[in-house]
Amino acid sequence: MSGNVVAALHGVRDVRLETRETPTPGESEVVVEVRCVGVCGSDVHYYEHGRIGEFVVESPLVLGHEAAGVVVDQGPRATTRALGRRVALEPGVPCGRCFECRSGRYNLCADVRFFATPPIDGAFARYVTIHEDYAFALPDTLSDEAGALLEPLAVAVWACRKGRVEAGDRVLVTGAGPIGNLVAQVASAAGATTVVVADVNRARLARVAGVGATGTLDLGSRQLTPADGPFDVLLECTGDEELLAAAIGTLRPAGTAVAVGMGPGLHARLPLALMQSREITLVGTFRYANAYAAAIALAATGRVDLDGLVDARFPLEETDRALRATREDPSLLKVVVLPDSTDRGPSGTAFRQPG
Amino acid sequence: MSGNVVAALHGVRDVRLETRETPTPGESEVVVEVRCVGVCGSDVHYYEHGRIGEFVVESPLVLGHEAAGVVVDQGPRATTRALGRRVALEPGVPCGRCFECRSGRYNLCADVRFFATPPIDGAFARYVTIHEDYAFALPDTLSDEAGALLEPLAVAVWACRKGRVEAGDRVLVTGAGPIGNLVAQVASAAGATTVVVADVNRARLARVAGVGATGTLDLGSRQLTPADGPFDVLLECTGDEELLAAAIGTLRPAGTAVAVGMGPGLHARLPLALMQSREITLVGTFRYANAYAAAIALAATGRVDLDGLVDARFPLEETDRALRATREDPSLLKVVVLPDSTDRGPSGTAFRQPG
Amino acid sequence: MSGNVVAALHGVRDVRLETRETPTPGESEVVVEVRCVGVCGSDVHYYEHGRIGEFVVESPLVLGHEAAGVVVDQGPRATTRALGRRVALEPGVPCGRCFECRSGRYNLCADVRFFATPPIDGAFARYVTIHEDYAFALPDTLSDEAGALLEPLAVAVWACRKGRVEAGDRVLVTGAGPIGNLVAQVASAAGATTVVVADVNRARLARVAGVGATGTLDLGSRQLTPADGPFDVLLECTGDEELLAAAIGTLRPAGTAVAVGMGPGLHARLPLALMQSREITLVGTFRYANAYAAAIALAATGRVDLDGLVDARFPLEETDRALRATREDPSLLKVVVLPDSTDRGPSGTAFRQPG
Amino acid sequence: MSGNVVAALHGVRDVRLETRETPTPGESEVVVEVRCVGVCGSDVHYYEHGRIGEFVVESPLVLGHEAAGVVVDQGPRATTRALGRRVALEPGVPCGRCFECRSGRYNLCADVRFFATPPIDGAFARYVTIHEDYAFALPDTLSDEAGALLEPLAVAVWACRKGRVEAGDRVLVTGAGPIGNLVAQVASAAGATTVVVADVNRARLARVAGVGATGTLDLGSRQLTPADGPFDVLLECTGDEELLAAAIGTLRPAGTAVAVGMGPGLHARLPLALMQSREITLVGTFRYANAYAAAIALAATGRVDLDGLVDARFPLEETDRALRATREDPSLLKVVVLPDSTDRGPSGTAFRQPG
Repeated sequence: MSGNVVAALHGVRDVRLETRETPTPGESEVVVEVRCVGVCGSDVHYYEHGRIGEFVVESPLVLGHEAAGVVVDQGPRATTRALGRRVALEPGVPCGRCFECRSGRYNLCADVRFFATPPIDGAFARYVTIHEDYAFALPDTLSDEAGALLEPLAVAVWACRKGRVEAGDRVLVTGAGPIGNLVAQVASAAGATTVVVADVNRARLARVAGVGATGTLDLGSRQLTPADGPFDVLLECTGDEELLAAAIGTLRPAGTAVAVGMGPGLHARLPLALMQSREITLVGTFRYANAYAAAIALAATGRVDLDGLVDARFPLEETDRALRATREDPSLLKVVVLPDSTDRGPSGTAFRQPG
Repeated sequence: MSGNVVAALHGVRDVRLETRETPTPGESEVVVEVRCVGVCGSDVHYYEHGRIGEFVVESPLVLGHEAAGVVVDQGPRATTRALGRRVALEPGVPCGRCFECRSGRYNLCADVRFFATPPIDGAFARYVTIHEDYAFALPDTLSDEAGALLEPLAVAVWACRKGRVEAGDRVLVTGAGPIGNLVAQVASAAGATTVVVADVNRARLARVAGVGATGTLDLGSRQLTPADGPFDVLLECTGDEELLAAAIGTLRPAGTAVAVGMGPGLHARLPLALMQSREITLVGTFRYANAYAAAIALAATGRVDLDGLVDARFPLEETDRALRATREDPSLLKVVVLPDSTDRGPSGTAFRQPG
Repeated sequence: MSGNVVAALHGVRDVRLETRETPTPGESEVVVEVRCVGVCGSDVHYYEHGRIGEFVVESPLVLGHEAAGVVVDQGPRATTRALGRRVALEPGVPCGRCFECRSGRYNLCADVRFFATPPIDGAFARYVTIHEDYAFALPDTLSDEAGALLEPLAVAVWACRKGRVEAGDRVLVTGAGPIGNLVAQVASAAGATTVVVADVNRARLARVAGVGATGTLDLGSRQLTPADGPFDVLLECTGDEELLAAAIGTLRPAGTAVAVGMGPGLHARLPLALMQSREITLVGTFRYANAYAAAIALAATGRVDLDGLVDARFPLEETDRALRATREDPSLLKVVVLPDSTDRGPSGTAFRQPG
Repeated sequence: MSGNVVAALHGVRDVRLETRETPTPGESEVVVEVRCVGVCGSDVHYYEHGRIGEFVVESPLVLGHEAAGVVVDQGPRATTRALGRRVALEPGVPCGRCFECRSGRYNLCADVRFFATPPIDGAFARYVTIHEDYAFALPDTLSDEAGALLEPLAVAVWACRKGRVEAGDRVLVTGAGPIGNLVAQVASAAGATTVVVADVNRARLARVAGVGATGTLDLGSRQLTPADGPFDVLLECTGDEELLAAAIGTLRPAGTAVAVGMGPGLHARLPLALMQSREITLVGTFRYANAYAAAIALAATGRVDLDGLVDARFPLEETDRALRATREDPSLLKVVVLPDSTDRGPSGTAFRQPG
């Protein structure tokens, strides 16, 4: 470990490769050599706009929070992770002390240190450090790429928990991107016997139909209507305010709507009268808590397919291209960066594998 | 029982006293001689507009659904109610067969027959019939007026259940009308140690402060802000869309907002981004289910005061005046009609007792 | 329909074929020509002992409560089931009026009329009548035998609901008989990624391993110990008091134990101190409520295999043999009676197909 | 602070006053000068037997875990507690890292450091140290004695949460000792309208009747029978196995039994068949989690009376007598030790105030 190479965002669409000091682990931390990092929509949003809401990139920020790698060093009080172990990173380390943390809702901890959220650096890097409790042992049956995608899978697990998806449920998932795809897979794994996925992107609908969706709804050709229901649970993954409103209208009385996708606005116009007369529950989700063990178990037992989501791979040096590809090419469901791959070949040959 | 006198709504602001046939009880029904009927905002809305949303008054409709009285007759298969027993009426009789009914959510039964909802007549009448299971024995300690007000109390019990109000909770109630007042009382009875009630009507705030509110907030002098919180539960009783949005902003992370009051519009603009990042739960309430036993127990043990809400009383002949008084005089918290009182004195003397 | 042939229990091990009057449907009832009836352990218990606890067979009783068939007649107010439709019967019709019914717990209705529970006759008959709401349309993809086995599947669905089995859970199922087998299948369908089934019968363990169990534990060769855990949920399906106690010891803190199997005694010796220090939840299940829709969906989508449980078939005339076979031959997981099959061949040839 | 005086248990019934070094706060700890410590049954059990189950007193152990006092020093990273603030101590500090802690069940943390549980010293001392997050600011309206009794109040809050006591519930509390008394008070504060308390001690029944119980049942004169119910929730506070079994028999279908009191044995004989046929839920409680804020709010608003429980007071020098008095004199509901009171008068005069 002689120096740490990172891809840092200096401004809008300005990602630069830098060499920083090799990280030193804190007392209970491990140093992880990053093997794979997924590109998330939030990374692209920072790349394009330099901010997400009130989170503004003011000094150079390393993006990337979907990561897996190998433990190469550890602090003096780290006890549970052996050196050399492959791990998946849960990228938010909460304070462990506040009311939210003590109540089991550590995802709502105000003092969480979350990768790639200003001013905390993320994982588009050769090395990262993290508290050992948030580095989960990766079963041998899971690839590095699957390890990185445990993060969006944890989002999906959390969404289904919030929606209380049960065996025999009829579930509507709006959005067939990476999150919608995984949410549909988890809903199916949780016993939903009807899993309808709606999106405008037919290719994405076709892909999710292959991994758990029992039906798809092409929103490019028609609107969602109450006649498409009734559904027990809605898992909204687009952040589209109008779609959320329409989808709430497909729920059965006492059904549950889970708002997973974040939209651009602060407010949304929702069908409140209908939510009242039908006693619909609407709940938002923010990241996840205690979801990694379930995510690992679902992936390791083959209930959920993660590898199939990855459509393109870039070396760390081409993080910029990975971010742009995610933004520009809707045929790519998930793009990953492979930081340790620079030795293994030039970009565009071995790495880039269109899906 | 020679004929049934009713006050029927024939059109907007057109209530006429009519004599109809004495009702015959169905097989499992009882005939109740009505002693007291509360005037609800929905009665006034039908009176003023001839409709509420898609429910339109097309033929003469008897209003009134908050009722108590005495059983004077029963059908051949009615078994549980003795003649002469004082009863409070739960005014909606569900089908008992549909999925909602079988799931314990009979308030969402699509085939419910609910008093004063077209085309089902209500209780501004000398006599009404109802399935015996929905006529609850009224303890001797409760007055006829309290018996009638068990209906809005059931609404309040249900709202607090939906909000899962617990001992030690901090609760915000928006609206200090009859529902808000009772919701605040039930929240307090359920152990909420902070019960802040917000309204523009100072007199109503003063009244609720006397029966359980630990604090009041005069919305006539200032806006509700996040600094007024954090609250664990919001019980919104005004139907004001903007107030609901502002009140959601006062909730703690993972707090719950219960939309009790119905507003004029179908949609509402809600702070969705905040609901997501804080994982707020929003749930609507529609009437109540299995709430009468608790309502009776709370009133009978003095945990909730019902008698104190009644500010004016009218005989059946003056149902029209009762409806107008409710609409026009905000100093009246609850107006009741006393159908069997015509023998006891002229209107405006014995009956009308401004609060 | 000229007369109804039934197999009635007249005393211990005394089943007689009788011809009774063709049943006349009640107002909202349908008459169902029975196609398949599963033999349940409770049927065998009545056959052997003439009673189950306080339920005593005093006059001739028709056993059988796992039934599917075809609607051949209906009462004047039956509306939802077309003549000729294949249906699965939910064999308990609750009163629909009591507190339990109104609360969504109709399985706890004290006035339920449940097939094959004295004095209510069951389904070892050519024809039975049932309220139309409890005759569920059987999808074409499900066989008559699967239709009959929806009843034990509903038991399994209910058990998993009570245990709140979630995606990623580690579940222990004790007992690999028909109920344990189906409970394991439903737990797996509900997302449990570890489903260990324990029994002394190796053949049954092998069978459940083929339909969802991720591991088995041969209780004939060794005891269950805490080291076999920790499990999130225990689904106890044997009724063995000692096994329940041992299995509770394998649960993680705050785990849940569901007592599905009924044992011979009224009391059981349970590890209360451990349940307290670990805050274990123990809950009993009694039949099921609102579980048929989920059961049908799980079977129809192939999440649960029902046909594979059936090992032997008998005509109605040999109900006696079906009961004895279930008792005597532990290699038979599920025995069924096919009432309409007498025309199609002699017993022991076409019908009896050892598994 | 020149030395710390403590009352240490050296063996069975062998408590010695010792002077130890003045405690030094850890980084995030505060040093609290103890003002009041309640004597708990567990303290008496250690005093009498030298052990509780697997927890054995091997080296001198300071007992006492119900404590309040004043912050007199703090570690370098303690931020939230000002010096001089009166605080109540939550006496168990969990690890904050394990699965239980992260799930909001920190009371089940295997690495918790809990006062007066070997080898962790308790609060019969002049000074104690504790992590600042577990020292709760004590409102001015609450006495030091009330501050100490927040600990058993937290037990009661937790029990009612586990039982999901709701407004209008009918609750049975078995045991009228300090815990039963507080459980009854909290159940009442949480809206239970029927709170029946059962015990053999008539004086204790009379006392609880004055603070929330709506009825009492003298178990010295007759047995508890199903006819005493039905109750929605049982809160068992005696640890008596037979009473628990009998009390479960008074629950309504789908009722909940909470086992609060710990009995002497590891196992208990419970009415399992009845728990199954009625779908009773039995759950154990172990200490509490996140209950102090509610406990403080309930006490500070007068919903629960704590001061009235204290019947006798002893100086630290007479901790031995305090322990013996608690064991020997059933007329004393709660005995406290006042460590800072030695200057204020001799034992037996100012301090000892029989209730």
